[in-house]
Amino acid sequence: MNSVTTATTNRGRPGYAREDVIRIAVDQFNTHGYEATSMGALATTLGVSKSAIYHHITSKEEILVEATDQALEALFDVIEEADATPGTAEDRLAAVISGATRVLCEKPENVTLLLRLRGNTEVEKQILERRRLITRRFIDFVASAQEEGAVRSTLDAGMVARLTFGMINSLVEWYRPDGPISPEELSEIMPDFVFRGLAAR
Amino acid sequence: MNSVTTATTNRGRPGYAREDVIRIAVDQFNTHGYEATSMGALATTLGVSKSAIYHHITSKEEILVEATDQALEALFDVIEEADATPGTAEDRLAAVISGATRVLCEKPENVTLLLRLRGNTEVEKQILERRRLITRRFIDFVASAQEEGAVRSTLDAGMVARLTFGMINSLVEWYRPDGPISPEELSEIMPDFVFRGLAAR
Repeated sequence: MNSVTTATTNRGRPGYAREDVIRIAVDQFNTHGYEATSMGALATTLGVSKSAIYHHITSKEEILVEATDQALEALFDVIEEADATPGTAEDRLAAVISGATRVLCEKPENVTLLLRLRGNTEVEKQILERRRLITRRFIDFVASAQEEGAVRSTLDAGMVARLTFGMINSLVEWYRPDGPISPEELSEIMPDFVFRGLAAR
Repeated sequence: MNSVTTATTNRGRPGYAREDVIRIAVDQFNTHGYEATSMGALATTLGVSKSAIYHHITSKEEILVEATDQALEALFDVIEEADATPGTAEDRLAAVISGATRVLCEKPENVTLLLRLRGNTEVEKQILERRRLITRRFIDFVASAQEEGAVRSTLDAGMVARLTFGMINSLVEWYRPDGPISPEELSEIMPDFVFRGLAAR
């Protein structure tokens, strides 16, 4: 967990590279909670002085913004790609489900941090607002597939979108990329499971 | 959020009833994180002295154990009821999905606390072990429905169980019992969504 490559390239100083500091900070936030982790505790974990961290990072919030940004940007990319997917609204919805699954497999730590945010500060509220934007776009994809007739219109689009996201988001809790199901398999299984359910017939 | 009925019945002392202290503590844990919430901070929120809290509760862990117990016991009850459900394995799986949905609607705060536990202490590890027991039993229900032929056997039972639980658990993040979908409706929709998926055809 704490194995890092000590880099000497970042701003020409020896010690941890900036991305290592962020990665380990995210790990600490996810293990002990964002609010319960101080920059001092982070310095202790890294085995460096606080000033060595402040050489890279101006605040705990800066780490939070940057780490959640990586998850949010990847999810916005998925939406953009799905928007550009030719074919039916069902195809585009499948692309979003599949793409979001891939992001969760690739950046579980960043997504975990994003999902656990409570919105106690102004910066957290802004991050949550971007997260909500993704949910709203996802609801649009469901609604379009309903208008097309591919998705049952008896189900509320907002409910379907949130339940499906809930299912995908749960991956951060239990999914292991080195387990029996590969990320590629999973991103194929997921839209199929959402569309067809688990019934054999 | 902090509106409480001041009770004078509990152990015959004036002030908060024990269940109020626990309820408000759970709310604080969920808002600021379990580790970040001290008994002192809880006392401040309640507007009482620390000793007034220690009159009811011996430790923060006692609150954690009791609050998560309420969620765990309710879920074990659901499993027991499902075990006793006559009919097919599919009926029993549907009963578990429906029952778990009901518990999430009824005790969202307790379940949230249970889901956010990180397992940093021995007590937390024990609670997580009981949570895992529920997951394992849920996997059994899926596997039985697969043996019966009701559920596609191409899907891994562990994966299906965890994804379905992920979907149900997501309710604590967005579901409002006073919104357009009632808990009763939701516990009917949920097994249907899991079995049939969202495809119209």
